[in-house]
Amino acid sequence: MNAKFVCKGDVVFSIDQEHMQSIEQGFVVCEDGICMGAYDELPAEYAQYPVVDCGKNLIFPGMTDLHVHAPQYTFRGLGMDCELLEWLQTYTFPEENKYRDMDYAREAYSYFAEDLKRGFTTRAVIFATIHNEATVELMDQLEETGLITYVGRVNMDRNGGSGLQEESAGSSLLGTRRWLEAVQGRYRNTMPILTPRFIPTCSDELMLGLGALAKEKSLRIQSHLSENPAEIAWVRELVPAADCYANAYELFGHMGSEELPTIMAHCVYSDAREMEILKAHGVYVAHCPDSNLNICSGIAPVRKLLDAGIHVGLGTDVAGGSSLNMVRTMLTTLQVSKMYHTLLERDCAPLTFEETFYLATMGGGQYFGKVGSFRKGYEFDAVVADDSLMKSTRHLTPRERAERMIYNDADCMIRKKFVAGRQVL
Amino acid sequence: MNAKFVCKGDVVFSIDQEHMQSIEQGFVVCEDGICMGAYDELPAEYAQYPVVDCGKNLIFPGMTDLHVHAPQYTFRGLGMDCELLEWLQTYTFPEENKYRDMDYAREAYSYFAEDLKRGFTTRAVIFATIHNEATVELMDQLEETGLITYVGRVNMDRNGGSGLQEESAGSSLLGTRRWLEAVQGRYRNTMPILTPRFIPTCSDELMLGLGALAKEKSLRIQSHLSENPAEIAWVRELVPAADCYANAYELFGHMGSEELPTIMAHCVYSDAREMEILKAHGVYVAHCPDSNLNICSGIAPVRKLLDAGIHVGLGTDVAGGSSLNMVRTMLTTLQVSKMYHTLLERDCAPLTFEETFYLATMGGGQYFGKVGSFRKGYEFDAVVADDSLMKSTRHLTPRERAERMIYNDADCMIRKKFVAGRQVL
Repeated sequence: MNAKFVCKGDVVFSIDQEHMQSIEQGFVVCEDGICMGAYDELPAEYAQYPVVDCGKNLIFPGMTDLHVHAPQYTFRGLGMDCELLEWLQTYTFPEENKYRDMDYAREAYSYFAEDLKRGFTTRAVIFATIHNEATVELMDQLEETGLITYVGRVNMDRNGGSGLQEESAGSSLLGTRRWLEAVQGRYRNTMPILTPRFIPTCSDELMLGLGALAKEKSLRIQSHLSENPAEIAWVRELVPAADCYANAYELFGHMGSEELPTIMAHCVYSDAREMEILKAHGVYVAHCPDSNLNICSGIAPVRKLLDAGIHVGLGTDVAGGSSLNMVRTMLTTLQVSKMYHTLLERDCAPLTFEETFYLATMGGGQYFGKVGSFRKGYEFDAVVADDSLMKSTRHLTPRERAERMIYNDADCMIRKKFVAGRQVL
Repeated sequence: MNAKFVCKGDVVFSIDQEHMQSIEQGFVVCEDGICMGAYDELPAEYAQYPVVDCGKNLIFPGMTDLHVHAPQYTFRGLGMDCELLEWLQTYTFPEENKYRDMDYAREAYSYFAEDLKRGFTTRAVIFATIHNEATVELMDQLEETGLITYVGRVNMDRNGGSGLQEESAGSSLLGTRRWLEAVQGRYRNTMPILTPRFIPTCSDELMLGLGALAKEKSLRIQSHLSENPAEIAWVRELVPAADCYANAYELFGHMGSEELPTIMAHCVYSDAREMEILKAHGVYVAHCPDSNLNICSGIAPVRKLLDAGIHVGLGTDVAGGSSLNMVRTMLTTLQVSKMYHTLLERDCAPLTFEETFYLATMGGGQYFGKVGSFRKGYEFDAVVADDSLMKSTRHLTPRERAERMIYNDADCMIRKKFVAGRQVL
């Protein structure tokens, strides 16, 4: 593929949290993986670049899935009949335990990687399992897709139920070091991330060890925070020294920094004190509304997180969420923000479409650097989508078509996808 | 098409509100539009019938959309930024006013009819506008699809804003009579239904006149009930004699009977008193969860409606809802029932997948008679859907695949559709 090219079509993207740009039959310029801007008329300096004519298809930035469990993809959309802790013991841990078997892992991860590749996602931050070999297999397969991802080999040395538990903090840490050695220098697009499942499955010793390891090797961390009331009460018992769940992670050295930011999934019940901690460390909150609905967790206060200046992106959280579809996740994000406003707090305004589109693209993309926009200098992640099945009596702008798409994603076909300037679909 | 045939494939359907039957490589028999049952082995008496081999596709009953506004399809997924009364004045009434223009109506309705035909819906109950000619055009187009529908020419003689309002109760009633004459005997599959928009747009005189007309001509009625707090407060002012919104309809003779049941959309705020009225008349509640989310109405107490023995089906309520997709509507139904349980009333259990599937098929189907199941004696409405894009590491039953489908409808392709035994797709 040419390193310099122009995509021509109906362009729409976020400029910032509140504003979008919409250009009919516009031009998006790519140079060596970097977007040189979006234009209604092609500047003379790019006139010689080859043009990828996308016709009347929509061209918008690729989406970042900030939180997804690859091994759980096998039971997506099944067994959505209990809350978090019971759901983990009944469905999740027994399934993840199967990834000891490499034949199983290879097949299961191939379905995950294939479907992630054909969807709206260009970047993702992913949980694997406690198994080193299977996690490397997942990373190998993801590398093949051309998507850019962080992948975590999971740590858990307690409360894993039958089978899915490491012997000790020491063996979990040693296993993690071995995994890091195995993947070092192996990939272009696939990076390791430390992944303590959550405090209930990680002893203090393991948590402290992982905090130290993150520091030693300048690694990022991902985990779960304040998803469900029973989970939060449990953490209060497990870490009595902490004044809240977020503070427990902080005490273990897991909250990261603006340079090496931590991702915390959910934050459904994060209050002002937790938000203070999230903000102080530059944590990214992965908002996962489908999961929060499916396993009856609640609705995260996204408007408040944004107002507090906290980084927020979206996660599908398969298999709490049941689909890798980021466009559907946008719709659920909008809808639950309206429910938060209607049922919980009238003064907390619903998210707008602009804000929701921002979260799915720039909000999560920022975790990867300058990603998620067609502003000049951003990495060139783009999706080309055909929405011609949705006919209209009047002329719609690309911005309006993007809004309509999130309500009717089944009628929207992805035709091309680019990640950092490389065409992957 | 042969009047007697057998469909072979992976069959799943509701037997009743709590139970489903799932038959891998099963047989569903059709005789003259009626289902003669579903079998794991084909009974000898049907051995000579031609077999429609659907391979490994899922075969399930067609779905009934109990509440949808055809003229609003043109702005689906756009302008979802206000609540009911403002939304009606800002987006809905100006759009419906365009259907005075037959060229516009013809084009707009063609998109609606085409998309309804290619979706999961086999039966629908539809609002048109106040315009006779455009309503007949819609009915003509729907008749062509092979779907079975009720269509209502809308009545409104007050509060219609700029343009969308009839001159008087008398002219609205006269227009309705003329429309009824125009469509009498014209269709096989398309039936008229009286359609007062809702009490705020219909004077007492008009409401009483329509109640009398329903009785005179044995017609059914559809309308809206208790969707939004501001609407409910308004109705309290408009009909001071009524002790609640439902009672207002009752006083005007609009609540129907088991033989000629009324459909009331929404019932988000229906309390015990309203449920008593709904139950006494055999009203069908059209539960429209996507709409209730999109325009911040709230969450209807579906579990309580069912427990009270009230008929409930699902509606997409385009364009409060933004998609004709009944499978998506099932998912939202499940998800909002979980939110009702989590946020509003812990003792009110979420709906199960079985109950939700029932609502979309038998629950609404019952409005049309014996519709929405493959039990013997039901009308043969069937959808054949290909879910092979969703790969699995383990063997899934048709019941499990149906559950997975509602969470991943974009990966599910409709291959065939039958309505009362006639193949329409």
